[in-house]
Amino acid sequence: MKTRVYVTLKNGVLDPQGKAIHHALEGLGFSGVNDVRAGKLIELDLAEGVSDEDVEAMCRKLLANTVIENFRIERPESQGAAA
Amino acid sequence: MKTRVYVTLKNGVLDPQGKAIHHALEGLGFSGVNDVRAGKLIELDLAEGVSDEDVEAMCRKLLANTVIENFRIERPESQGAAA
Repeated sequence: MKTRVYVTLKNGVLDPQGKAIHHALEGLGFSGVNDVRAGKLIELDLAEGVSDEDVEAMCRKLLANTVIENFRIERPESQGAAA
Repeated sequence: MKTRVYVTLKNGVLDPQGKAIHHALEGLGFSGVNDVRAGKLIELDLAEGVSDEDVEAMCRKLLANTVIENFRIERPESQGAAA
């Protein structure tokens, strides 16, 4: 079962990668870009029976640095709730 | 207007970052993870009037390496079509 985790920097945290992308887009002549933020997308292929709580624990322990990052979990349906 | 671009590796392309995450999850005792693929999430804050075609050009020219990566664009609604 495919589960997607989106990891983004919290507001107020400096994002040099996003700044570099923004600068490069302007250098290529693209106008109308106000801001760019870079984040991560992690696709997990999970066995049946992995609960939502397990996925959240993975995020908190490894996938996201919760001091500076937010994470959002997207599952096809909440099939994993019955662990 | 917020626009999100999801960049993922094509099938068959080796993903050492995903492999490392997978290995680390197993090391932390999480079972039931079959595979992990790492990708990028780029949030663009665009001015009004930036068309879908412009965003696709940004992806093709800079944000994604279309030889090895796929990209998907997600806009709130297709407001930008009238450039």
